[in-house]
Amino acid sequence: MQEQQLVLAIDIGGTKLAVGVVDGEGRVLESRRAPNPNPPTDDGEQLLRALLALIEELTTDRAELSGVGIGCGGPMRWPVGEVSPLNIPSWRDFPLRARLAEELKLPARIHNDAVCVAIAEHWRGAGVGADNVLGMVVSTGVGGGLILGGRLIDGASGNAGHIGHAIVHEHEPVCRCGAIGCLEAIASGPNLAAWAFRQGWRTGFPVDQRTGRDLVEDARRGDPTAVAALNRAGRALGIGIASATTLCDLDVVAIGGGISQAGPLLFDPLEASLRERVGLDFARSVRVVPAGLGQESGLVGAAALIIHPERYWSGD
Amino acid sequence: MQEQQLVLAIDIGGTKLAVGVVDGEGRVLESRRAPNPNPPTDDGEQLLRALLALIEELTTDRAELSGVGIGCGGPMRWPVGEVSPLNIPSWRDFPLRARLAEELKLPARIHNDAVCVAIAEHWRGAGVGADNVLGMVVSTGVGGGLILGGRLIDGASGNAGHIGHAIVHEHEPVCRCGAIGCLEAIASGPNLAAWAFRQGWRTGFPVDQRTGRDLVEDARRGDPTAVAALNRAGRALGIGIASATTLCDLDVVAIGGGISQAGPLLFDPLEASLRERVGLDFARSVRVVPAGLGQESGLVGAAALIIHPERYWSGD
Repeated sequence: MQEQQLVLAIDIGGTKLAVGVVDGEGRVLESRRAPNPNPPTDDGEQLLRALLALIEELTTDRAELSGVGIGCGGPMRWPVGEVSPLNIPSWRDFPLRARLAEELKLPARIHNDAVCVAIAEHWRGAGVGADNVLGMVVSTGVGGGLILGGRLIDGASGNAGHIGHAIVHEHEPVCRCGAIGCLEAIASGPNLAAWAFRQGWRTGFPVDQRTGRDLVEDARRGDPTAVAALNRAGRALGIGIASATTLCDLDVVAIGGGISQAGPLLFDPLEASLRERVGLDFARSVRVVPAGLGQESGLVGAAALIIHPERYWSGD
Repeated sequence: MQEQQLVLAIDIGGTKLAVGVVDGEGRVLESRRAPNPNPPTDDGEQLLRALLALIEELTTDRAELSGVGIGCGGPMRWPVGEVSPLNIPSWRDFPLRARLAEELKLPARIHNDAVCVAIAEHWRGAGVGADNVLGMVVSTGVGGGLILGGRLIDGASGNAGHIGHAIVHEHEPVCRCGAIGCLEAIASGPNLAAWAFRQGWRTGFPVDQRTGRDLVEDARRGDPTAVAALNRAGRALGIGIASATTLCDLDVVAIGGGISQAGPLLFDPLEASLRERVGLDFARSVRVVPAGLGQESGLVGAAALIIHPERYWSGD
């Protein structure tokens, strides 16, 4: 039965919208992507209409769909699904879940976009077969989701998984959240690029040509400052993952997102740092691996909210 | 029905054995305590016999008991219950769960002693009414247990909850587990006392008169070095709790154990440090409170393994 189920999946990030149809085994049968906002807008309703127009482009018969799963950048009030994505200023307490349920006439469920990536890694990616998985996205921010005992952990307010705000340094830097020493304040793409810039990397370039992506490219070409920045990020990630591993007794940590594309330039210092920070036998057996799914993972995880609620949905 | 259920509970720490009879509402109806080892022994069988003799002193009719719940110092292989407690060298891979089930002719379940304290705080203590609780013991070590979504989190090997090995400092100190910067390496009683001693506290005293307990007493009397040591421990606890709170989206952190008896001398710097380390709104609403139960909490939590398996037991 479940294999025949079809679900509409939506993935809303700061820079792109994606929609797709996902089957009961987590295969994306068709999808559409667009930049976000498209068209550029400070009108929340207009952004919703752009999203609905993208859904209209899908060829699957609406009557075949059993529900809509939504991943969206945080923060949000959960499970009610009133979203205020950091990178989408036109949505503040926007009732995305309710509006999509109403417009599409489908049962709708929603979670943080990084949580959806973690779900996808557990269901169909690098975490398959493991019951205790931290899925991470290292990109514009550092986000994540936590699956323990084979189930998604939501926490008190649906915000569990915020590994980007684990504390990895004692005295600095100050994070955009206001706290001192958060992992994200070191390892996110913009923070990596800003640190490298202060060390002399691409000093003659405009800011849009010194992104995290540019940094990863330069590091691959051997730029020593870019390599040092990834080394610093990897070491910080190792500390944050050590704390998460000992606290939660993880099997697998799966890391995706643009910065993870740096491969060994990130994963080697990460592993070295992690090994210095975990002493207990049980924790030393954790495996840190690149995410197994690519850019479709947000859609796959969003669909899982509908397809496997017994594992991934504790909301109302 | 459940209210009438009676369970034998056992709490085995490095310095004491406790046994008791606990009813379905978590009340300890009778109990016995003895130092451990008693008599001092390097014979694991003799220690088991001492434990069984203590159980014989209980007056409750054995036929009324529905099972035995055991809390024991770690590490252990779980759920099989082969224990190798750090402070009980005569038990190495000792099949405690199986032996007690056999000797007592009762179904037996086992967990880490700090996990049992966390369970007790969730069931009957400071965490009542909350679904997402970190229970901590700050004592000879720094241990804990994690209840998320209303259920005990076991992790991959039954070792979830090891908050004492969250990383709180970047470069030092080295922990007995081998890792760098663990919370326990700063905030446990022996590490606190050792730090204070190096700063000139009780330099003329023998080592058994400069314990964590002595340090707490001196701090209460205003000894500035003892106060500084608790301040340092509180600040480290705040960092570790910040990481756990953002990762797990906790409602409540309940802290027991001898060092927690320092009260505001520990909790005030803890709270100040925590507030510097959590910026996200959801995390700022966490409450850090003293444990609500006293020395019986280990027995209450051990009993809960039998009484409320749907929340606290995922083993076989």
